[in-house]
Amino acid sequence: MFKAYCKAKLPLIDEALQKAMTIEGEIAPTIFDSMRYSLFAGGKRLRPVLLLAAADAVGADGNKFLNVACGLEMIHTYSLIHDDLPAMDNDDYRRGKLTNHKVYGEGIAVLAGDSLLTYAFETMLSQEGVEPKTLLRVVKEIASAAGPEGMVGGQVIDMESEGKAVSLDTLQQMHRAKTGALFRAAVRAGAILGGASDEEVEALTVYAEKFGLAFQITDDILDVIGTAEAIGKPVGSDLKNNKSTYVTLHSVEIAQQMAKETVDDAIEALAMFGERGAVLKDLVEYLLKRES
Amino acid sequence: MFKAYCKAKLPLIDEALQKAMTIEGEIAPTIFDSMRYSLFAGGKRLRPVLLLAAADAVGADGNKFLNVACGLEMIHTYSLIHDDLPAMDNDDYRRGKLTNHKVYGEGIAVLAGDSLLTYAFETMLSQEGVEPKTLLRVVKEIASAAGPEGMVGGQVIDMESEGKAVSLDTLQQMHRAKTGALFRAAVRAGAILGGASDEEVEALTVYAEKFGLAFQITDDILDVIGTAEAIGKPVGSDLKNNKSTYVTLHSVEIAQQMAKETVDDAIEALAMFGERGAVLKDLVEYLLKRES
Repeated sequence: MFKAYCKAKLPLIDEALQKAMTIEGEIAPTIFDSMRYSLFAGGKRLRPVLLLAAADAVGADGNKFLNVACGLEMIHTYSLIHDDLPAMDNDDYRRGKLTNHKVYGEGIAVLAGDSLLTYAFETMLSQEGVEPKTLLRVVKEIASAAGPEGMVGGQVIDMESEGKAVSLDTLQQMHRAKTGALFRAAVRAGAILGGASDEEVEALTVYAEKFGLAFQITDDILDVIGTAEAIGKPVGSDLKNNKSTYVTLHSVEIAQQMAKETVDDAIEALAMFGERGAVLKDLVEYLLKRES
Repeated sequence: MFKAYCKAKLPLIDEALQKAMTIEGEIAPTIFDSMRYSLFAGGKRLRPVLLLAAADAVGADGNKFLNVACGLEMIHTYSLIHDDLPAMDNDDYRRGKLTNHKVYGEGIAVLAGDSLLTYAFETMLSQEGVEPKTLLRVVKEIASAAGPEGMVGGQVIDMESEGKAVSLDTLQQMHRAKTGALFRAAVRAGAILGGASDEEVEALTVYAEKFGLAFQITDDILDVIGTAEAIGKPVGSDLKNNKSTYVTLHSVEIAQQMAKETVDDAIEALAMFGERGAVLKDLVEYLLKRES
Protein backbone atom coordinates (compact mmCIF):
# COMPACT_ATOMS: atom_id res chain seq x y z
CA MET A 1 0.00 0.00 0.00
CA PHE A 2 2.81 2.41 0.89
CA LYS A 3 4.51 1.71 -2.43
CA ALA A 4 1.31 2.32 -4.37
CA TYR A 5 0.75 5.51 -2.38
CA CYS A 6 4.24 6.80 -3.14
CA LYS A 7 3.91 5.80 -6.77
CA ALA A 8 0.81 7.97 -6.95
CA LYS A 9 2.15 10.88 -4.89
CA LEU A 10 5.79 11.26 -5.91
CA PRO A 11 5.01 12.45 -9.45
CA LEU A 12 2.58 15.01 -8.02
CA ILE A 13 5.17 16.27 -5.55
CA ASP A 14 7.87 16.45 -8.20
CA GLU A 15 5.56 18.23 -10.59
CA ALA A 16 4.67 20.78 -7.93
CA LEU A 17 8.37 21.27 -7.11
CA GLN A 18 9.18 21.71 -10.79
CA LYS A 19 6.40 24.24 -11.11
CA ALA A 20 7.55 26.14 -8.02
CA MET A 21 11.09 26.20 -9.41
CA THR A 22 10.10 27.53 -12.82
CA ILE A 23 10.42 31.27 -12.60
CA GLU A 24 9.94 33.71 -15.44
CA GLY A 25 12.87 36.01 -16.04
CA GLU A 26 15.26 34.64 -13.41
CA ILE A 27 17.74 37.38 -12.58
CA ALA A 28 20.52 35.00 -11.54
CA PRO A 29 20.24 31.64 -13.35
CA THR A 30 23.17 30.09 -11.42
CA ILE A 31 21.29 30.17 -8.16
CA PHE A 32 18.25 28.42 -9.62
CA ASP A 33 20.48 25.80 -11.26
CA SER A 34 22.14 25.04 -7.94
CA MET A 35 18.81 24.96 -6.07
CA ARG A 36 17.38 22.56 -8.65
CA TYR A 37 20.52 20.40 -8.62
CA SER A 38 20.00 19.48 -4.98
CA LEU A 39 16.21 19.54 -5.02
CA PHE A 40 16.10 16.95 -7.79
CA ALA A 41 18.98 14.77 -6.61
CA GLY A 42 16.92 11.72 -5.74
CA GLY A 43 15.40 12.66 -2.38
CA LYS A 44 12.79 10.27 -1.01
CA ARG A 45 10.31 13.13 -0.41
CA LEU A 46 9.51 11.63 3.00
CA ARG A 47 8.35 14.90 4.55
CA PRO A 48 5.93 15.86 1.77
CA VAL A 49 4.59 12.28 1.71
CA LEU A 50 4.04 12.39 5.48
CA LEU A 51 2.12 15.66 5.14
CA LEU A 52 -0.13 14.30 2.40
CA ALA A 53 -0.70 11.00 4.20
CA ALA A 54 -1.58 12.76 7.48
CA ALA A 55 -4.11 14.95 5.68
CA ASP A 56 -5.58 11.88 3.99
CA ALA A 57 -5.74 10.09 7.33
CA VAL A 58 -8.01 12.76 8.79
CA GLY A 59 -10.33 12.54 5.80
CA ALA A 60 -9.04 15.47 3.74
CA ASP A 61 -7.42 15.44 0.31
CA GLY A 62 -3.68 15.90 0.90
CA ASN A 63 -3.18 16.86 -2.76
CA LYS A 64 -4.68 20.24 -1.91
CA PHE A 65 -1.68 21.14 0.22
CA LEU A 66 1.17 20.56 -2.20
CA ASN A 67 2.63 24.04 -1.72
CA VAL A 68 3.21 23.45 1.97
CA ALA A 69 4.49 19.94 1.22
CA CYS A 70 7.00 21.33 -1.29
CA GLY A 71 8.14 23.93 1.24
CA LEU A 72 9.08 21.12 3.64
CA GLU A 73 11.19 19.45 0.98
CA MET A 74 12.95 22.75 0.20
CA ILE A 75 13.76 23.23 3.90
CA HIS A 76 15.07 19.67 4.15
CA THR A 77 17.18 20.14 1.01
CA TYR A 78 18.68 23.44 2.19
CA SER A 79 19.73 21.77 5.44
CA LEU A 80 21.53 19.01 3.54
CA ILE A 81 23.41 21.52 1.34
CA HIS A 82 24.64 23.44 4.38
CA ASP A 83 25.40 20.28 6.41
CA ASP A 84 27.64 19.04 3.60
CA LEU A 85 29.77 22.23 3.52
CA PRO A 86 33.48 21.99 4.38
CA ALA A 87 32.84 24.07 7.53
CA MET A 88 30.34 21.42 8.67
CA ASP A 89 30.45 17.72 7.69
CA ASN A 90 32.68 18.31 4.64
CA ASP A 91 31.00 15.63 2.51
CA ASP A 92 31.81 15.20 -1.18
CA TYR A 93 28.92 12.88 -2.00
CA ARG A 94 25.25 12.76 -1.15
CA ARG A 95 22.91 10.11 -2.59
CA GLY A 96 25.73 9.04 -4.91
CA LYS A 97 26.08 12.49 -6.48
CA LEU A 98 28.60 15.23 -5.85
CA THR A 99 27.43 17.60 -3.13
CA ASN A 100 26.28 21.08 -4.09
CA HIS A 101 29.51 22.88 -3.15
CA LYS A 102 31.61 20.36 -5.08
CA VAL A 103 29.69 21.32 -8.21
CA TYR A 104 28.97 25.03 -7.70
CA GLY A 105 31.59 26.12 -5.18
CA GLU A 106 31.13 27.02 -1.53
CA GLY A 107 29.81 30.53 -2.01
CA ILE A 108 26.98 29.49 -4.31
CA ALA A 109 26.22 26.46 -2.11
CA VAL A 110 25.72 28.72 0.91
CA LEU A 111 23.44 30.94 -1.18
CA ALA A 112 21.56 28.00 -2.71
CA GLY A 113 20.71 26.87 0.82
CA ASP A 114 19.70 30.38 1.86
CA SER A 115 17.61 30.68 -1.24
CA LEU A 116 15.82 27.36 -0.78
CA LEU A 117 14.99 28.24 2.81
CA THR A 118 13.61 31.65 1.86
CA TYR A 119 11.78 30.31 -1.16
CA ALA A 120 10.26 27.56 1.00
CA PHE A 121 8.43 30.24 2.97
CA GLU A 122 7.34 32.07 -0.15
CA THR A 123 6.01 28.79 -1.56
CA MET A 124 4.20 27.77 1.61
CA LEU A 125 2.64 31.20 2.08
CA SER A 126 1.30 30.95 -1.49
CA GLN A 127 -0.79 27.90 -0.60
CA GLU A 128 -4.33 28.46 -1.79
CA GLY A 129 -7.57 26.92 -0.55
CA VAL A 130 -6.73 27.24 3.15
CA GLU A 131 -8.06 29.69 5.73
CA PRO A 132 -5.36 32.39 6.19
CA LYS A 133 -5.45 31.85 9.94
CA THR A 134 -4.81 28.12 9.57
CA LEU A 135 -2.04 28.65 7.04
CA LEU A 136 -0.33 31.15 9.36
CA ARG A 137 -0.49 28.66 12.22
CA VAL A 138 0.97 25.84 10.15
CA VAL A 139 3.80 27.82 8.54
CA LYS A 140 4.73 29.34 11.90
CA GLU A 141 4.94 25.85 13.37
CA ILE A 142 7.16 24.71 10.49
CA ALA A 143 9.42 27.75 11.02
CA SER A 144 9.72 26.88 14.68
CA ALA A 145 10.58 23.25 13.85
CA ALA A 146 13.29 24.35 11.41
CA GLY A 147 14.92 27.05 13.55
CA PRO A 148 17.22 27.39 16.56
CA GLU A 149 14.93 25.38 18.81
CA GLY A 150 14.45 22.71 16.16
CA MET A 151 16.52 21.55 13.22
CA VAL A 152 19.31 24.15 13.42
CA GLY A 153 19.57 23.75 17.20
CA GLY A 154 19.93 19.99 16.74
CA GLN A 155 22.67 20.50 14.18
CA VAL A 156 24.55 22.68 16.68
CA ILE A 157 24.29 19.98 19.37
CA ASP A 158 25.53 17.47 16.77
CA MET A 159 28.56 19.64 15.92
CA GLU A 160 29.35 20.22 19.57
CA SER A 161 29.12 16.49 20.32
CA GLU A 162 31.63 15.55 17.65
CA GLY A 163 34.39 13.29 18.87
CA LYS A 164 32.83 13.18 22.33
CA ALA A 165 31.03 10.31 24.00
CA VAL A 166 27.55 11.68 24.65
CA SER A 167 24.76 10.34 26.81
CA LEU A 168 21.61 8.72 25.45
CA ASP A 169 19.72 11.78 26.72
CA THR A 170 21.83 14.20 24.67
CA LEU A 171 21.61 11.91 21.66
CA GLN A 172 17.83 11.84 21.88
CA GLN A 173 17.54 15.60 22.37
CA MET A 174 19.80 16.14 19.38
CA HIS A 175 17.80 13.89 17.07
CA ARG A 176 14.46 15.16 18.32
CA ALA A 177 15.57 18.62 17.22
CA LYS A 178 17.72 17.84 14.18
CA THR A 179 15.43 15.47 12.30
CA GLY A 180 12.44 14.80 14.56
CA ALA A 181 11.05 18.33 14.67
CA LEU A 182 10.55 18.60 10.91
CA PHE A 183 8.91 15.15 10.64
CA ARG A 184 6.63 16.21 13.49
CA ALA A 185 5.80 19.50 11.78
CA ALA A 186 5.11 17.68 8.49
CA VAL A 187 2.59 15.32 10.05
CA ARG A 188 0.96 18.02 12.18
CA ALA A 189 0.77 20.37 9.18
CA GLY A 190 -1.08 17.72 7.18
CA ALA A 191 -3.45 17.07 10.06
CA ILE A 192 -4.16 20.73 10.82
CA LEU A 193 -4.53 21.72 7.15
CA GLY A 194 -6.85 18.73 6.76
CA GLY A 195 -9.11 20.03 9.50
CA ALA A 196 -8.26 17.40 12.14
CA SER A 197 -9.80 17.54 15.61
CA ASP A 198 -7.49 18.32 18.53
CA GLU A 199 -7.63 14.66 19.50
CA GLU A 200 -6.55 13.59 16.02
CA VAL A 201 -3.71 16.13 15.96
CA GLU A 202 -2.59 14.82 19.35
CA ALA A 203 -2.55 11.19 18.19
CA LEU A 204 -0.71 12.04 14.98
CA THR A 205 1.84 14.04 16.96
CA VAL A 206 2.66 10.91 18.97
CA TYR A 207 2.89 8.95 15.72
CA ALA A 208 5.23 11.56 14.23
CA GLU A 209 7.53 11.61 17.24
CA LYS A 210 7.84 7.83 17.16
CA PHE A 211 8.38 7.98 13.40
CA GLY A 212 11.26 10.41 13.88
CA LEU A 213 12.87 8.24 16.53
CA ALA A 214 12.53 5.08 14.43
CA PHE A 215 13.96 6.95 11.44
CA GLN A 216 17.05 7.89 13.42
CA ILE A 217 17.65 4.48 14.96
CA THR A 218 17.36 2.78 11.57
CA ASP A 219 19.64 5.46 10.10
CA ASP A 220 22.29 4.59 12.66
CA ILE A 221 21.86 0.86 11.93
CA LEU A 222 22.23 1.46 8.18
CA ASP A 223 25.52 3.23 8.77
CA VAL A 224 26.83 -0.08 10.11
CA ILE A 225 25.07 -2.78 8.12
CA GLY A 226 24.02 -0.89 4.97
CA THR A 227 25.84 -0.86 1.65
CA ALA A 228 27.47 2.21 0.19
CA GLU A 229 25.71 1.55 -3.13
CA ALA A 230 22.24 1.69 -1.61
CA ILE A 231 22.93 4.64 0.69
CA GLY A 232 24.93 6.68 -1.82
CA LYS A 233 27.70 7.58 0.63
CA PRO A 234 30.39 5.66 2.52
CA VAL A 235 29.14 3.51 5.40
CA GLY A 236 30.85 3.22 8.78
CA SER A 237 31.39 6.98 8.95
CA ASP A 238 29.82 7.29 12.42
CA LEU A 239 32.30 4.84 13.92
CA LYS A 240 35.18 6.42 12.04
CA ASN A 241 34.18 9.89 13.24
CA ASN A 242 33.83 8.60 16.80
CA LYS A 243 30.19 9.61 16.73
CA SER A 244 27.77 8.38 19.38
CA THR A 245 24.77 6.60 17.84
CA TYR A 246 22.08 4.18 18.95
CA VAL A 247 24.37 1.43 17.69
CA THR A 248 27.57 2.58 19.39
CA LEU A 249 25.69 3.19 22.67
CA HIS A 250 24.06 -0.23 22.48
CA SER A 251 24.60 -2.81 19.73
CA VAL A 252 23.09 -3.53 16.34
CA GLU A 253 20.77 -6.14 17.87
CA ILE A 254 19.51 -3.90 20.65
CA ALA A 255 19.12 -0.97 18.25
CA GLN A 256 17.06 -3.18 15.94
CA GLN A 257 14.88 -4.19 18.88
CA MET A 258 14.44 -0.52 19.86
CA ALA A 259 13.48 0.36 16.29
CA LYS A 260 10.91 -2.42 16.22
CA GLU A 261 9.35 -1.30 19.50
CA THR A 262 9.29 2.34 18.43
CA VAL A 263 7.50 1.41 15.21
CA ASP A 264 4.95 -0.57 17.26
CA ASP A 265 4.35 2.51 19.42
CA ALA A 266 3.82 4.63 16.30
CA ILE A 267 1.29 2.15 14.95
CA GLU A 268 -0.54 2.07 18.28
CA ALA A 269 -1.00 5.84 18.06
CA LEU A 270 -2.90 5.33 14.79
CA ALA A 271 -5.66 3.21 16.37
CA MET A 272 -8.41 5.84 16.12
CA PHE A 273 -7.91 6.22 12.35
CA GLY A 274 -8.78 2.60 11.46
CA GLU A 275 -8.38 1.93 7.75
CA ARG A 276 -7.60 5.59 7.04
CA GLY A 277 -4.35 5.18 8.97
CA ALA A 278 -3.12 2.32 6.76
CA VAL A 279 -0.70 4.40 4.68
CA LEU A 280 0.89 5.97 7.76
CA LYS A 281 1.21 2.47 9.25
CA ASP A 282 2.97 1.17 6.14
CA LEU A 283 5.13 4.27 6.04
CA VAL A 284 6.58 3.73 9.52
CA GLU A 285 6.96 -0.03 8.95
CA TYR A 286 9.01 0.72 5.84
CA LEU A 287 11.67 2.25 8.12
CA LEU A 288 12.46 -1.26 9.40
CA LYS A 289 13.03 -2.52 5.87
CA ARG A 290 14.71 0.44 4.24
CA GLU A 291 18.10 0.06 2.62
CA SER A 292 18.84 3.77 2.22
CA MET B 1 12.94 65.29 13.13
CA PHE B 2 14.54 62.10 11.83
CA LYS B 3 16.94 62.06 14.78
CA ALA B 4 14.12 62.55 17.25
CA TYR B 5 12.15 59.79 15.51
CA CYS B 6 15.06 57.35 15.69
CA LYS B 7 15.72 58.29 19.28
CA ALA B 8 12.13 57.33 20.07
CA LYS B 9 12.01 54.19 17.91
CA LEU B 10 15.41 52.54 18.28
CA PRO B 11 14.88 51.60 21.95
CA LEU B 12 11.50 50.08 21.03
CA ILE B 13 13.03 48.08 18.19
CA ASP B 14 15.92 46.91 20.35
CA GLU B 15 13.58 45.95 23.15
CA ALA B 16 11.42 43.95 20.75
CA LEU B 17 14.52 42.24 19.33
CA GLN B 18 15.76 41.43 22.84
CA LYS B 19 12.38 40.01 23.71
CA ALA B 20 12.24 37.93 20.54
CA MET B 21 15.72 36.59 21.28
CA THR B 22 14.95 35.61 24.87
CA ILE B 23 13.92 31.99 24.71
CA GLU B 24 13.11 29.77 27.67
CA GLY B 25 15.13 26.58 27.81
CA GLU B 26 17.34 27.12 24.76
CA ILE B 27 18.54 23.72 23.61
CA ALA B 28 21.73 25.03 22.03
CA PRO B 29 22.95 28.21 23.75
CA THR B 30 25.85 28.72 21.32
CA ILE B 31 23.52 29.40 18.42
CA PHE B 32 21.58 32.05 20.33
CA ASP B 33 24.81 33.67 21.47
CA SER B 34 26.06 33.92 17.90
CA MET B 35 22.69 35.20 16.62
CA ARG B 36 22.65 37.87 19.35
CA TYR B 37 26.27 38.80 18.70
CA SER B 38 25.49 39.96 15.17
CA LEU B 39 21.98 41.21 15.88
CA PHE B 40 23.27 43.59 18.55
CA ALA B 41 26.47 44.68 16.82
CA GLY B 42 25.46 48.27 16.23
CA GLY B 43 23.16 48.01 13.22
CA LYS B 44 21.36 51.20 12.23
CA ARG B 45 17.96 49.42 12.14
CA LEU B 46 17.16 51.20 8.88
CA ARG B 47 14.70 48.57 7.66
CA PRO B 48 12.61 48.43 10.84
CA VAL B 49 12.62 52.25 11.02
CA LEU B 50 11.43 52.45 7.40
CA LEU B 51 8.58 50.05 8.17
CA LEU B 52 7.45 52.01 11.21
CA ALA B 53 7.75 55.36 9.43
CA ALA B 54 5.76 54.12 6.43
CA ALA B 55 2.98 52.89 8.70
CA ASP B 56 2.97 56.22 10.52
CA ALA B 57 2.88 58.07 7.19
CA VAL B 58 -0.37 56.39 6.22
CA GLY B 59 -1.92 57.31 9.56
CA ALA B 60 -1.40 54.06 11.47
CA ASP B 61 0.69 53.41 14.57
CA GLY B 62 3.86 51.70 13.36
CA ASN B 63 4.64 50.51 16.89
CA LYS B 64 1.96 47.89 16.45
CA PHE B 65 4.03 46.06 13.84
CA LEU B 66 7.27 45.55 15.72
CA ASN B 67 7.33 41.80 15.09
CA VAL B 68 7.43 42.27 11.34
CA ALA B 69 9.95 45.09 11.77
CA CYS B 70 12.23 42.83 13.84
CA GLY B 71 11.96 40.07 11.24
CA LEU B 72 13.37 42.46 8.61
CA GLU B 73 16.36 43.22 10.84
CA MET B 74 16.97 39.49 11.39
CA ILE B 75 16.92 38.87 7.63
CA HIS B 76 19.32 41.76 7.04
CA THR B 77 21.64 40.50 9.79
CA TYR B 78 21.67 36.91 8.48
CA SER B 79 22.66 38.22 5.03
CA LEU B 80 25.60 40.14 6.52
CA ILE B 81 26.84 37.06 8.43
CA HIS B 82 26.79 34.91 5.28
CA ASP B 83 28.24 37.69 3.07
CA ASP B 84 31.21 37.98 5.41
CA LEU B 85 32.09 34.25 5.22
CA PRO B 86 35.44 33.22 3.72
CA ALA B 87 33.59 31.60 0.80
CA MET B 88 32.00 34.98 0.02
CA ASP B 89 33.57 38.37 0.86
CA ASN B 90 35.94 36.97 3.51
CA ASP B 91 35.68 39.98 5.80
CA ASP B 92 37.21 40.00 9.28
CA TYR B 93 35.50 43.15 10.50
CA ARG B 94 32.00 44.58 10.31
CA ARG B 95 31.02 47.80 12.05
CA GLY B 96 34.38 47.77 13.81
CA LYS B 97 33.78 44.37 15.41
CA LEU B 98 35.05 40.94 14.43
CA THR B 99 32.69 39.20 12.03
CA ASN B 100 30.58 36.30 13.27
CA HIS B 101 32.78 33.54 11.83
CA LYS B 102 35.93 35.11 13.30
CA VAL B 103 34.36 34.78 16.75
CA TYR B 104 32.31 31.57 16.48
CA GLY B 105 33.92 29.71 13.59
CA GLU B 106 32.56 29.14 10.12
CA GLY B 107 30.20 26.28 10.92
CA ILE B 108 28.35 28.18 13.64
CA ALA B 109 28.32 31.34 11.51
CA VAL B 110 26.56 29.49 8.68
CA LEU B 111 24.04 28.14 11.20
CA ALA B 112 23.60 31.50 12.94
CA GLY B 113 22.59 32.95 9.57
CA ASP B 114 20.26 30.04 8.83
CA SER B 115 18.77 30.40 12.25
CA LEU B 116 18.18 34.15 12.01
CA LEU B 117 16.51 33.71 8.64
CA THR B 118 14.21 30.97 9.92
CA TYR B 119 13.51 32.77 13.17
CA ALA B 120 12.67 35.94 11.22
CA PHE B 121 9.73 34.12 9.67
CA GLU B 122 8.62 32.67 13.00
CA THR B 123 8.77 36.17 14.51
CA MET B 124 6.92 37.86 11.66
CA LEU B 125 4.21 35.19 11.57
CA SER B 126 3.67 35.78 15.31
CA GLN B 127 2.64 39.40 14.69
CA GLU B 128 -0.63 40.06 16.49
CA GLY B 129 -3.28 42.66 15.78
CA VAL B 130 -3.23 42.18 12.00
CA GLU B 131 -5.76 40.43 9.77
CA PRO B 132 -4.29 36.99 8.94
CA LYS B 133 -4.83 37.62 5.23
CA THR B 134 -2.89 40.90 5.38
CA LEU B 135 -0.08 39.36 7.42
CA LEU B 136 0.23 36.50 4.91
CA ARG B 137 0.47 38.97 2.04
CA VAL B 138 3.14 41.05 3.75
CA VAL B 139 5.33 38.15 4.91
CA LYS B 140 5.09 36.53 1.50
CA GLU B 141 6.25 39.76 -0.11
CA ILE B 142 9.17 39.98 2.32
CA ALA B 143 10.12 36.36 1.51
CA SER B 144 10.07 37.19 -2.18
CA ALA B 145 12.26 40.26 -1.61
CA ALA B 146 14.80 38.22 0.36
CA GLY B 147 14.99 35.20 -1.95
CA PRO B 148 16.48 34.16 -5.29
CA GLU B 149 14.68 36.93 -7.16
CA GLY B 150 15.62 39.51 -4.58
CA MET B 151 18.44 39.79 -2.08
CA VAL B 152 20.07 36.39 -2.68
CA GLY B 153 19.81 36.79 -6.44
CA GLY B 154 21.52 40.17 -6.17
CA GLN B 155 24.31 38.67 -4.11
CA VAL B 156 24.86 36.05 -6.83
CA ILE B 157 25.10 38.76 -9.51
CA ASP B 158 27.55 40.58 -7.24
CA MET B 159 29.74 37.48 -6.86
CA GLU B 160 29.64 36.77 -10.57
CA SER B 161 30.58 40.38 -11.38
CA GLU B 162 33.68 40.32 -9.21
CA GLY B 163 36.80 41.52 -10.95
CA LYS B 164 34.80 42.26 -14.09
CA ALA B 165 33.85 45.61 -15.53
CA VAL B 166 30.05 45.58 -15.55
CA SER B 167 27.59 47.88 -17.23
CA LEU B 168 25.48 50.43 -15.39
CA ASP B 169 22.45 48.24 -16.23
CA THR B 170 23.91 45.19 -14.49
CA LEU B 171 25.03 47.33 -11.58
CA GLN B 172 21.53 48.71 -11.13
CA GLN B 173 19.86 45.31 -11.45
CA MET B 174 22.27 43.91 -8.88
CA HIS B 175 21.61 46.64 -6.33
CA ARG B 176 17.88 46.65 -6.95
CA ALA B 177 17.89 42.99 -5.94
CA LYS B 178 20.66 42.88 -3.34
CA THR B 179 19.68 45.83 -1.17
CA GLY B 180 16.78 47.58 -2.89
CA ALA B 181 14.27 44.74 -2.65
CA LEU B 182 14.36 44.53 1.14
CA PHE B 183 14.09 48.34 1.57
CA ARG B 184 11.14 48.23 -0.81
CA ALA B 185 9.51 45.39 1.12
CA ALA B 186 10.07 47.22 4.43
CA VAL B 187 8.30 50.36 3.25
CA ARG B 188 5.50 48.45 1.51
CA ALA B 189 5.02 46.23 4.58
CA GLY B 190 4.58 49.28 6.78
CA ALA B 191 2.11 50.81 4.33
CA ILE B 192 0.06 47.64 3.82
CA LEU B 193 0.01 46.74 7.52
CA GLY B 194 -1.03 50.32 8.22
CA GLY B 195 -4.03 49.99 5.94
CA ALA B 196 -2.79 52.23 3.12
CA SER B 197 -4.86 52.75 -0.03
CA ASP B 198 -3.50 51.31 -3.29
CA GLU B 199 -2.51 54.81 -4.32
CA GLU B 200 -0.56 55.35 -1.12
CA VAL B 201 1.18 51.96 -1.47
CA GLU B 202 2.09 52.92 -5.03
CA ALA B 203 3.58 56.27 -4.01
CA LEU B 204 5.53 54.74 -1.14
CA THR B 205 6.85 52.04 -3.47
CA VAL B 206 8.37 54.75 -5.69
CA TYR B 207 9.80 56.40 -2.58
CA ALA B 208 11.31 53.09 -1.43
CA GLU B 209 12.90 52.35 -4.80
CA LYS B 210 14.51 55.78 -4.88
CA PHE B 211 15.59 55.33 -1.28
CA GLY B 212 17.33 52.07 -2.16
CA LEU B 213 19.11 53.62 -5.12
CA ALA B 214 20.24 56.65 -3.10
CA PHE B 215 21.43 54.31 -0.35
CA GLN B 216 23.61 52.42 -2.79
CA ILE B 217 25.09 55.45 -4.51
CA THR B 218 25.98 57.03 -1.17
CA ASP B 219 27.42 53.69 -0.03
CA ASP B 220 29.73 53.68 -3.04
CA ILE B 221 30.73 57.29 -2.35
CA LEU B 222 31.51 56.48 1.29
CA ASP B 223 33.84 53.69 0.19
CA VAL B 224 35.96 56.39 -1.45
CA ILE B 225 35.61 59.47 0.75
CA GLY B 226 34.54 57.96 4.09
CA THR B 227 36.80 57.21 7.04
CA ALA B 228 37.48 53.70 8.30
CA GLU B 229 36.63 54.81 11.84
CA ALA B 230 33.14 55.96 10.94
CA ILE B 231 32.34 53.01 8.65
CA GLY B 232 33.92 50.34 10.84
CA LYS B 233 35.74 48.62 7.98
CA PRO B 234 38.57 49.55 5.61
CA VAL B 235 37.67 52.08 2.91
CA GLY B 236 38.74 51.86 -0.70
CA SER B 237 37.91 48.15 -0.85
CA ASP B 238 35.77 48.53 -3.98
CA LEU B 239 38.64 50.01 -5.95
CA LYS B 240 41.09 47.47 -4.56
CA ASN B 241 38.75 44.60 -5.46
CA ASN B 242 38.27 46.04 -8.94
CA LYS B 243 34.56 46.35 -8.24
CA SER B 244 32.30 48.43 -10.46
CA THR B 245 30.42 51.08 -8.48
CA TYR B 246 28.59 54.31 -9.20
CA VAL B 247 31.87 56.06 -8.44
CA THR B 248 34.14 53.91 -10.63
CA LEU B 249 31.62 54.09 -13.50
CA HIS B 250 31.34 57.87 -13.15
CA SER B 251 33.22 60.02 -10.61
CA VAL B 252 32.66 61.11 -7.03
CA GLU B 253 31.16 64.40 -8.22
CA ILE B 254 28.75 62.84 -10.67
CA ALA B 255 27.78 60.15 -8.16
CA GLN B 256 27.04 62.87 -5.60
CA GLN B 257 24.88 64.66 -8.15
CA MET B 258 23.04 61.40 -8.92
CA ALA B 259 22.45 60.80 -5.22
CA LYS B 260 21.05 64.30 -4.80
CA GLU B 261 18.66 63.89 -7.75
CA THR B 262 17.53 60.47 -6.55
CA VAL B 263 16.76 61.86 -3.11
CA ASP B 264 14.75 64.66 -4.74
CA ASP B 265 12.75 62.03 -6.67
CA ALA B 266 12.07 60.15 -3.44
CA ILE B 267 10.83 63.31 -1.76
CA GLU B 268 8.60 64.11 -4.71
CA ALA B 269 6.88 60.74 -4.31
CA LEU B 270 5.87 61.76 -0.77
CA ALA B 271 3.80 64.75 -1.93
CA MET B 272 0.41 63.23 -1.12
CA PHE B 273 1.36 62.61 2.51
CA GLY B 274 1.97 66.24 3.42
CA GLU B 275 3.21 66.66 6.99
CA ARG B 276 2.81 62.92 7.67
CA GLY B 277 5.59 62.24 5.20
CA ALA B 278 8.10 64.42 7.07
CA VAL B 279 9.96 61.56 8.77
CA LEU B 280 10.35 59.65 5.51
CA LYS B 281 11.62 62.85 3.88
CA ASP B 282 14.22 63.36 6.60
CA LEU B 283 15.16 59.71 6.42
CA VAL B 284 16.07 59.82 2.74
CA GLU B 285 17.83 63.20 3.13
CA TYR B 286 19.98 61.69 5.85
CA LEU B 287 21.53 59.42 3.20
CA LEU B 288 23.26 62.47 1.69
CA LYS B 289 24.81 63.35 5.05
CA ARG B 290 25.63 59.94 6.45
CA GLU B 291 29.15 59.05 7.45
CA SER B 292 28.60 55.31 7.83
